[in-house]
Amino acid sequence: MSIETSPVTGSGTSSEFDRDTAVALREPGVYDVDLSAGWTIIHAVNGGYLLALLGRALGDHLPHPDPFTVSAHYLTPSVPGPAVIRTETVRTGRTLSTGTASLLQYDEDGNEVERIRVLASYGDLDALTDDVRTSAVPPAFAPIDQCFSAADNPAPAIPGSSAIADRLDLRLDPACVGWALGAPSGKGEMRAWFGLADGREPDPLSLLLAVDALPPTAFELGLKGWTPTVELTVHVRCRPAPGPLRVAITTRNLAGGFLEEDAEVWDGAGRLVAQSRQLARAPRG
Amino acid sequence: MSIETSPVTGSGTSSEFDRDTAVALREPGVYDVDLSAGWTIIHAVNGGYLLALLGRALGDHLPHPDPFTVSAHYLTPSVPGPAVIRTETVRTGRTLSTGTASLLQYDEDGNEVERIRVLASYGDLDALTDDVRTSAVPPAFAPIDQCFSAADNPAPAIPGSSAIADRLDLRLDPACVGWALGAPSGKGEMRAWFGLADGREPDPLSLLLAVDALPPTAFELGLKGWTPTVELTVHVRCRPAPGPLRVAITTRNLAGGFLEEDAEVWDGAGRLVAQSRQLARAPRG
Repeated sequence: MSIETSPVTGSGTSSEFDRDTAVALREPGVYDVDLSAGWTIIHAVNGGYLLALLGRALGDHLPHPDPFTVSAHYLTPSVPGPAVIRTETVRTGRTLSTGTASLLQYDEDGNEVERIRVLASYGDLDALTDDVRTSAVPPAFAPIDQCFSAADNPAPAIPGSSAIADRLDLRLDPACVGWALGAPSGKGEMRAWFGLADGREPDPLSLLLAVDALPPTAFELGLKGWTPTVELTVHVRCRPAPGPLRVAITTRNLAGGFLEEDAEVWDGAGRLVAQSRQLARAPRG
Repeated sequence: MSIETSPVTGSGTSSEFDRDTAVALREPGVYDVDLSAGWTIIHAVNGGYLLALLGRALGDHLPHPDPFTVSAHYLTPSVPGPAVIRTETVRTGRTLSTGTASLLQYDEDGNEVERIRVLASYGDLDALTDDVRTSAVPPAFAPIDQCFSAADNPAPAIPGSSAIADRLDLRLDPACVGWALGAPSGKGEMRAWFGLADGREPDPLSLLLAVDALPPTAFELGLKGWTPTVELTVHVRCRPAPGPLRVAITTRNLAGGFLEEDAEVWDGAGRLVAQSRQLARAPRG
């Protein structure tokens, strides 16, 4: 944990992602941040972008650098503009440390409103053993040159402006774009190649974005509208290799007005680098 | 939230589970509890039992009764005996409320040691819509009368005394008992019919136990020893119907000294009533 005056973590590169997830230490455990309008879908700030911001603050505050498991409960909708992150160390261990983080904004009357609460355990991905006995295999992805980017779409797939589309290099698998053509597949599946538009390579923080940056699976289930996240937990299992990531999201249990989204993220070396699950409210449509 | 002197929630029945997960309100947000030695595996207190205790305290403290999504980070090993749960409300909403809970014990010098930190969102399962569009189907389970209980085992499957075996009516699928015979399947799968030995019917709290009460999948991967949980998140999706539950756990990604365990819990009516995922340290063996 640094104690200099107002150092800024994350702004030292020309990357849009690093610039917009920069955190400025105000005092121990308190960070000033700016929620960029560049990561919005219509007016909503993307939940994965917000998680990366919180993840960066925790990585600065805790003695271990890398998110291993991060659980976020989304409380109220964030809006672009200034915000504060408060972090607290719960426990420091040899290989893992655990902390909490809160993202706060202020309402019109100047009252603090909590947006997101996070509970996370951090470690050092470079200290993991080389033992890999995974049986997981990636689902079939269409080759990246057969996938669809936002530029391929004559009309915006999501009505209204989606600034985040300009930050991402997202290539949707043709099997999962029926919703954009008025013919959803009926399957709760969404798959895409994922990169940052400015070519910044993936790292553990950008994985926190990647798990919540695709169109919702609910679109392919024929539902329209918002799918607000209640809770999202990400496990980062490996430092990702350079190159585009493959993100596969599935929903099996749409029931009672809620659904889960399970995401897997595969890196260019074929490793399963992150797994996540979120509970979300199902769209009404 | 009740404000009477020392009311005890959970002890009003003759159920072992309710008795041993009882929480006594000391003051608002503070509960005295006793970690029963009846839910141990060798000397370790079962993580699912502890989660149910924390879940009961949160259900008492928050305005909504039922766990919807509960994330627990396991910090230090709990021991049987007295403990304290401190709860805090993060946000109260119309359909969901969010809170934190900490399980605390005292070391030999009287210092408070935190065992588990929980972040959870609660709602009302009875208020959910009847809309069920799930595509999830249960994996194949052998009929309950073809499954193996602890009583079928000439020698204890787990060396040493496992008190929890007397509290549960666990019937392991024959396809997943190779580990107990020295011939693990090599697949990261564990399946069992799950009930409480005294016949108490399932409810949302006992689901928090059920997701972490089977032998670890690592045993079927040929590994021996402890699989300590780092983090466990449970989604309760439906109030379970009476009768035995079916619990299926899978591990796909054993890598770098960690593994995930994904659990699904199906009730007697064929509904997917809970989904969980945990990150655990892989056994060394």
